[in-house]
Amino acid sequence: MLCARPRLWSRADADGAAGMKCYLDYNATTPLAGPVRDAMLACMDGLPGNPSSTHQFGRARRAMIEAAREQVAQLVGVQPSQVIFTSGGTEANNLALHAVTAGRTPGRIAVSSIEHPSVLEMARHLADSGWQTDLLGVDTQCRVTEAALQQNITADTRLVSVMMANNETGAIQDIASIADYARRAGAVMHTDAVQAVGRLAADFADSGVQLMSLSSHKIYGPQGVGALVYDKALELTPLQYGGGQERGYRAGTENVAGIVGFGAAAELALQRQASDSEYLRSLRDALEAGLARYPQITIFAQQAERLPNTVQLAVNGIDGEALLMQLDRAGIAVSSGSACSSGNNEASHVLLAMGVEPVLARGAIRISLGRDTTQQDIDAVLNQIGQQQQWVQKAGQVAGW
Amino acid sequence: MLCARPRLWSRADADGAAGMKCYLDYNATTPLAGPVRDAMLACMDGLPGNPSSTHQFGRARRAMIEAAREQVAQLVGVQPSQVIFTSGGTEANNLALHAVTAGRTPGRIAVSSIEHPSVLEMARHLADSGWQTDLLGVDTQCRVTEAALQQNITADTRLVSVMMANNETGAIQDIASIADYARRAGAVMHTDAVQAVGRLAADFADSGVQLMSLSSHKIYGPQGVGALVYDKALELTPLQYGGGQERGYRAGTENVAGIVGFGAAAELALQRQASDSEYLRSLRDALEAGLARYPQITIFAQQAERLPNTVQLAVNGIDGEALLMQLDRAGIAVSSGSACSSGNNEASHVLLAMGVEPVLARGAIRISLGRDTTQQDIDAVLNQIGQQQQWVQKAGQVAGW
Ligand SMILES: Cc1ncc(COP(=O)(O)O)c(C=O)c1O
Ligand SMILES: Cc1ncc(COP(=O)(O)O)c(C=O)c1O
Repeated sequence: MLCARPRLWSRADADGAAGMKCYLDYNATTPLAGPVRDAMLACMDGLPGNPSSTHQFGRARRAMIEAAREQVAQLVGVQPSQVIFTSGGTEANNLALHAVTAGRTPGRIAVSSIEHPSVLEMARHLADSGWQTDLLGVDTQCRVTEAALQQNITADTRLVSVMMANNETGAIQDIASIADYARRAGAVMHTDAVQAVGRLAADFADSGVQLMSLSSHKIYGPQGVGALVYDKALELTPLQYGGGQERGYRAGTENVAGIVGFGAAAELALQRQASDSEYLRSLRDALEAGLARYPQITIFAQQAERLPNTVQLAVNGIDGEALLMQLDRAGIAVSSGSACSSGNNEASHVLLAMGVEPVLARGAIRISLGRDTTQQDIDAVLNQIGQQQQWVQKAGQVAGW
Repeated sequence: MLCARPRLWSRADADGAAGMKCYLDYNATTPLAGPVRDAMLACMDGLPGNPSSTHQFGRARRAMIEAAREQVAQLVGVQPSQVIFTSGGTEANNLALHAVTAGRTPGRIAVSSIEHPSVLEMARHLADSGWQTDLLGVDTQCRVTEAALQQNITADTRLVSVMMANNETGAIQDIASIADYARRAGAVMHTDAVQAVGRLAADFADSGVQLMSLSSHKIYGPQGVGALVYDKALELTPLQYGGGQERGYRAGTENVAGIVGFGAAAELALQRQASDSEYLRSLRDALEAGLARYPQITIFAQQAERLPNTVQLAVNGIDGEALLMQLDRAGIAVSSGSACSSGNNEASHVLLAMGVEPVLARGAIRISLGRDTTQQDIDAVLNQIGQQQQWVQKAGQVAGW
């Protein structure tokens, strides 16, 4: 069972490929949008030049980077000079945590228990230099609780890091009010907005944060480029030293083609966000209506405000990896847990933090939709789930399949 | 005065551009080689996928990365598992220094005084965590001296970092014998081979090092990708934490198109190194023969073994930035000092380390040749230099111009 041919990547080579597949893993990564690809190619086919060189070849490259910086700045409503380009969301998160802790007297940082590993692992690493991490718990709907904020954000807290939208469940946090807590405690507020931008209106000022992480490949831009957006009142310590690029905050010859692609993706994301979200929400609702026919299925964080494209679910008694492989054989790509930790068979730390039973959490799969998803894709995945009669038997359930 | 149209970037858009320019700044960055561009485009136009995803879309991306890892490994004669992809040469250098010092009892590191800022600035930063840096001096020909090694590499030295070839003068170090010193002192040996690979045979084992930095955009690959090659006997501390990519040594969703381009560039570099070097050497010799007509001109490190493509020179009494701008107006791109620090008007730290007078050092420009350089380019730059009669007057010199 194969889905309709997706739109965006059905160019040249792909056209010739035998039988297109059904990609429903947009939270792991998105295809390159056509205009992004074209902007990158123009850069790749242009004259050579190192953006740090003062001759005209260099200046032309510098101009490309500054145009992209403007595009990314507009996406979140900041000045271009507040954008530091990085090698991705992971580096942006690492830099955010490092930038305001390195070289400082160690204190406490508060991060939510559902953060991406690039925040959680980096926070763990800061313990080596004496920083203590307080984990902010979430409720059953994947939302950081008021009680967690009250208990953990104290006068010793120097940094609070809570993601804007969760990559697994899609749950959206009330960042403005968490930022309020942080501000009152005198802490810097960081948000990982990697999954949020392009899928909801993510304005830097409105969210009340001082640091915001972005990643290009979640918004139809290339992999390996991202940004840390910062409040210029902060003093930041760099992670990488060298030739003084990015105002000294991030040394290294810039990934010019990647940055150009990120800029084009940001511009598109700003233009399309409202209509994309509406389209995705309608497909998502159709998917969930279809899933509702199966009582064995739990959809996580369904009561929370969520990203319009994300459905995380588990089939009672079924292992998520096994389900993922079944779907994969049928040409349908979904994820078990987060892309980064898929491949290992552990239960998702996000679901465990929500109080989901480990046995159910291990059954979780994530279906995430995107611009190229069609109703046929939704039908295909529902049809496959319906066909997997053996799951029902394994789960010891009967009717409805 | 414009040079012949360069070969590699004379595609589509470039063809239409009015009047091609003369690019003689290959040490700052190289154009994308045609096969590199094509490999990247195939990746960009392919199906989407996060290399960490276990479904077939993800596995296809993983395979692309592993094929590139093999290509990069072959360039320097190592196993693919010894290659850690990074966001460039700067990150590779930062990671090399961080990986063997972070979390260790502070000691001493020895780095040459002519290193790239990504080594020197990172070494300076390590002082914050108690590490002491000893600078290894060089002779007038830009070669690390025996005396410097004897004095500075002691039983307390944990890391020695000396670049294989200098980006400004092109001077090549005897890395194998420096590595020997390091080994006898029980220190880890790192070399920044960013300017060396593709221009000389840079074998990891032959050089005797345990860490080697590479950058894609100096070998006709894309900007923003590089690698740290390592001896698997070392225990490395990562710079970036997160999803466990690159065997846990470098987290973050991989820059897949960039890595694919780097792989293609590495394969080409291996195939072409000998013939490229021979070709570049003949053009370089023609350039130097032309320059020899002007007694006001000093060529630096001319007695040293040098990269076949690099000529750093100064015109007595002339400011390098001014000369660079003159040439820029004529459509000829050269560099003053290193690309990374061009734009500021300081004398090159490399030349000062060689004992060059500051006033002469400030006059330095670097002409660096590449695969697309032709005899016409050489004639053009010589012609321009000849025409700049006013330099001579400024310098208070008379004949020969
Ligand atoms: C919420 C979140 N933060 C950070 C990242 C990491 O960004 P990148 O993939 O660009 O390293 C991801 C992507 O996996 C993510 O989903
Ligand atoms: C000798 C040397 N090392 C390191 C670098 C930095 O590499 P990248 O430009 O990929 O950050 C450069 C390039 O500027 C270089 O010439």
